[in-house]
Amino acid sequence: MDLRKTFNTKAQSETTTGFGTNPSNYGGRFINKDGTANVSKRGTNLLDRISWYHTMIAMPRWKFLLVILLFYVVVNFLFAMLYFSIGIEYLDGIEADGSAWEKFWKAYFFSAQTFTTVGYGHISPNGFLTSTLAASEALVGLLSFAIATGLFYGRFSKPKAFVRFSDNALIAPYKDGKALMLRMAPFKNNNLTDAEAKMTLGMVIDVDGKPESKFFFLDMEMRKINALSLSWTLVHPIGEDSPLYGFTEADFNNTEGEIIVYLKAFDDLFSATVAAGTSYLFNEIIYGAKFDMMYFENAANTRTILQLDKLNSFKKVDFGA
Amino acid sequence: MDLRKTFNTKAQSETTTGFGTNPSNYGGRFINKDGTANVSKRGTNLLDRISWYHTMIAMPRWKFLLVILLFYVVVNFLFAMLYFSIGIEYLDGIEADGSAWEKFWKAYFFSAQTFTTVGYGHISPNGFLTSTLAASEALVGLLSFAIATGLFYGRFSKPKAFVRFSDNALIAPYKDGKALMLRMAPFKNNNLTDAEAKMTLGMVIDVDGKPESKFFFLDMEMRKINALSLSWTLVHPIGEDSPLYGFTEADFNNTEGEIIVYLKAFDDLFSATVAAGTSYLFNEIIYGAKFDMMYFENAANTRTILQLDKLNSFKKVDFGA
Amino acid sequence: MDLRKTFNTKAQSETTTGFGTNPSNYGGRFINKDGTANVSKRGTNLLDRISWYHTMIAMPRWKFLLVILLFYVVVNFLFAMLYFSIGIEYLDGIEADGSAWEKFWKAYFFSAQTFTTVGYGHISPNGFLTSTLAASEALVGLLSFAIATGLFYGRFSKPKAFVRFSDNALIAPYKDGKALMLRMAPFKNNNLTDAEAKMTLGMVIDVDGKPESKFFFLDMEMRKINALSLSWTLVHPIGEDSPLYGFTEADFNNTEGEIIVYLKAFDDLFSATVAAGTSYLFNEIIYGAKFDMMYFENAANTRTILQLDKLNSFKKVDFGA
Amino acid sequence: MDLRKTFNTKAQSETTTGFGTNPSNYGGRFINKDGTANVSKRGTNLLDRISWYHTMIAMPRWKFLLVILLFYVVVNFLFAMLYFSIGIEYLDGIEADGSAWEKFWKAYFFSAQTFTTVGYGHISPNGFLTSTLAASEALVGLLSFAIATGLFYGRFSKPKAFVRFSDNALIAPYKDGKALMLRMAPFKNNNLTDAEAKMTLGMVIDVDGKPESKFFFLDMEMRKINALSLSWTLVHPIGEDSPLYGFTEADFNNTEGEIIVYLKAFDDLFSATVAAGTSYLFNEIIYGAKFDMMYFENAANTRTILQLDKLNSFKKVDFGA
Repeated sequence: MDLRKTFNTKAQSETTTGFGTNPSNYGGRFINKDGTANVSKRGTNLLDRISWYHTMIAMPRWKFLLVILLFYVVVNFLFAMLYFSIGIEYLDGIEADGSAWEKFWKAYFFSAQTFTTVGYGHISPNGFLTSTLAASEALVGLLSFAIATGLFYGRFSKPKAFVRFSDNALIAPYKDGKALMLRMAPFKNNNLTDAEAKMTLGMVIDVDGKPESKFFFLDMEMRKINALSLSWTLVHPIGEDSPLYGFTEADFNNTEGEIIVYLKAFDDLFSATVAAGTSYLFNEIIYGAKFDMMYFENAANTRTILQLDKLNSFKKVDFGA
Repeated sequence: MDLRKTFNTKAQSETTTGFGTNPSNYGGRFINKDGTANVSKRGTNLLDRISWYHTMIAMPRWKFLLVILLFYVVVNFLFAMLYFSIGIEYLDGIEADGSAWEKFWKAYFFSAQTFTTVGYGHISPNGFLTSTLAASEALVGLLSFAIATGLFYGRFSKPKAFVRFSDNALIAPYKDGKALMLRMAPFKNNNLTDAEAKMTLGMVIDVDGKPESKFFFLDMEMRKINALSLSWTLVHPIGEDSPLYGFTEADFNNTEGEIIVYLKAFDDLFSATVAAGTSYLFNEIIYGAKFDMMYFENAANTRTILQLDKLNSFKKVDFGA
Repeated sequence: MDLRKTFNTKAQSETTTGFGTNPSNYGGRFINKDGTANVSKRGTNLLDRISWYHTMIAMPRWKFLLVILLFYVVVNFLFAMLYFSIGIEYLDGIEADGSAWEKFWKAYFFSAQTFTTVGYGHISPNGFLTSTLAASEALVGLLSFAIATGLFYGRFSKPKAFVRFSDNALIAPYKDGKALMLRMAPFKNNNLTDAEAKMTLGMVIDVDGKPESKFFFLDMEMRKINALSLSWTLVHPIGEDSPLYGFTEADFNNTEGEIIVYLKAFDDLFSATVAAGTSYLFNEIIYGAKFDMMYFENAANTRTILQLDKLNSFKKVDFGA
Repeated sequence: MDLRKTFNTKAQSETTTGFGTNPSNYGGRFINKDGTANVSKRGTNLLDRISWYHTMIAMPRWKFLLVILLFYVVVNFLFAMLYFSIGIEYLDGIEADGSAWEKFWKAYFFSAQTFTTVGYGHISPNGFLTSTLAASEALVGLLSFAIATGLFYGRFSKPKAFVRFSDNALIAPYKDGKALMLRMAPFKNNNLTDAEAKMTLGMVIDVDGKPESKFFFLDMEMRKINALSLSWTLVHPIGEDSPLYGFTEADFNNTEGEIIVYLKAFDDLFSATVAAGTSYLFNEIIYGAKFDMMYFENAANTRTILQLDKLNSFKKVDFGA
């Protein structure tokens, strides 16, 4: 681990990150690129640690559909086994002289027709036990679809920020000096207002020969904007009070550090506050570069075009010196 | 493009609009009449740029119902094709001696009966493949209705402000001088409290011979009200500090400029914050006019009546001079 | 109308009520006892003025169920008419030799079985037109239940404050003087935290011989509490700065005035902010009374008991004089 | 009841707890360990006092499923009784020569098939009355499942803090003195940001010979953190201004008092504010102890591990003296 030997004593320390100061308690980065904390939980059993709703909601779409399909197949299989065990003769409409396999798959599809409440009726239960089982399966089926309805709604109504951050942060020219810049852009057809950002720097610093995790508040040219319709470049001017004051390209390359970014905005369509975040390790910071403009008027001069593919586009800049 | 040559240096500049200062990046107005930003996104494929949930929620009602109907017809058609391909003989209840067309539409309605889980049973699957297909269709059907349920709920539970803005803003007499006025009124049976408004002026100004987009904060007589039960007139007094100080009727006619308005309020029934917005180009501002009162006591003097059709009603006023 | 001739010039005027100053624009009270504004909307057609979702959600339970039942009966009736018109012979399972009435009610119940997707199948469609109609009805049925599901969920998940206000406000002894007091209590098994209240006084006052609606901010001993678990008495001390300073019992009886109260709180279970409100006309204010305590420890001294039936319980007090 | 005879007059009194000052009105603790108020409501009938939605949502899972199952069995039973009363001969498919018991359970399963809309059709209604009843039951069934869908969704989408508090609060060494410490940890796969905590002390104190409930604001080293990803220790330094200044171990043992803790945080996945709370009686405070660290870097030094089973783990400390 490379420590930063000194730090700017004028920099404003940030004590409210929720992380402590002892670096040997932490492994790897603090915050992942997707904005979640780089933390695993242990010490209780999995079920206690997992909110299955959060899990089902956060799951990729193909996985979610696969889980539903598997559930459907397995539950039908289990019920088919039960119908089969009770006896196929209690299911009217299945020929007694078929093979065991044929009887089983017919029981299986009877189960599917009951679970989904299609109930064609060419196969129907006639014994007490089989009827009870079928009545139970229909209940289980309807409740399963009640849960599926909730999960589908939960998945697509979940407020999401739909904001992308640039892959890199830049040290760019700014007025007479430099500034740390990174940018973000909304990429879907939602409407974000009252956006507010927060930037924090985490570094491991040598304090009297002992490594210590230090966090610094990074002041920004603008912390809030009324509407996040276009790209937004967050600018931390590296002035005398900045913890990054005097950092050279070598410093960024040789030191362990991390820029943590949080964003909150109000989504007009969801009528909800949405959040997003990311982090940049020092080796994800490009020293001497500036972002290309990413929006332009259209040909007819009636509308502004936001070029999403230019989010990561920048030009190298030589700071001379 | 007509530039404003000078501007009131006492006016309070607004830097948090989310728009930049280079006017050649913008086409047309900043904000549309419906409050959304006049921005298109390009540079990624459509699917990536579209939140289909936002799209389905924001769609007009007739279009939404049409999408559902088309989906239903198409899905049934596809499954009917599959049943037909596998062989009509695996569907009990369809006569073998009918025409191909008759067989097909019977397969089609069998599909519809399966998809909706009606399952009369006068037609029923008897082969393994056809049964599998029917079981799959019933699952697809139920999940489709789960999604439809979510979309319906999402559509009608979506918090909306239900506020209308006047078509025009006015330059009206105010105390000893003038004020920019525009008004809004809630038009449905909802109950809005803690309403807060924000007004911003955007203009292209000649700065040392170069056009620049400048934004100004427009101070208001009242920014917040406890309850938005009646019409609310937003009043920006055009005093010495106003960026509009000294503007003549000709200035409004000859300059490009835009008044941006945001509103937030708390809807008691949704228990959610709702937002609305609009904008007025300078040519939508009427110089020398004042709004007519739009609410009155009823005949019995027991209730106040808000006349929504008077929202845009105003009287011309001569400023003399 | 009885006007108040003078008012306390030290009182803090409240300009953010959303009501104007011209009393002849208002009929009756400003705010109803249930906290909604006493305003009707006119000037557009009813459909434009009504959010049918708000209406269905706010409707009493019995009315809501009745609407559903009527919808079910009417839709089935309409479809039955259509099946009947197309011809009963296209519905297998209905005897051709029955009476017209018998044929009709069988078509009606076939419709109900299709609409609810029960689809027993003892009656089934066999013609192309009837099959199309049945497939459409099943779709309509499922979508209707999708909407019903959303409405049910909307109704019972709607955050509500579940707070009751006392029927009367009191002028009660307070320290060495008097205070305006009213109280509220949560009455259900919800958990309200961070409660905040607002009190405003509206009066019609004679200003230079012209009646004017004046609103005053009523300062309170405590505007916010951490948890609204017990009753909460709002106390406006009638000090020198109070607009009610010097009011006698006769003043309350002879003047038109209104105390408007708003409450906001955070409901832990809904994880939402809930709002409630009410208003007291001057003739709902009791001069010279104080509330009885409404909570006590239980016999075992292990729990506190909130007596909801004592919400309106008070003792008369003689102010001497 | 043991009273505290004196109290630190420098301590900051807290008036906004929502609890009054007369201790004889309270029984037992103010706040339960789960953060709810220790209050029962009386004086209105149960139905008026209960929000059945809150109840169904807050119920443990097994109880909720049991309620649904019982409802299903009972409703089917009631409808079966009605079918049976009208006459089994109006149900085609039930043999006339069976025993009464057999007829009844067949009616019962017909009811279940109607309620769930499976509708196999091997039993079907043929009379007018029975058909009406079946059509009603199908409606009731679908509406019941609409409600169940809503309840399932309400249950699993309900924002919850998923935060655990330590069983005990500690009096631990802090800088040169002592501090009251307690800690919390998120235990599920959710992501909490902008966490804010509040601590209040409630004590019964002898004021001029009369017992009085006094509440004090407990200042904290840090009230807010940006992200609650790891454990968070709330620290109230017991300085000269603390109401606990000068408290000995005996004081904690002999006095009745309670530390009330509230937490609010923003859950990124729910996009909602979640709340949690708890309280510590003085006998749940351990004098002279400090918490063990509960997170560590993993072996590969790429991730931080939060050991949930160490939440309550502490070491005894001797304060000397």
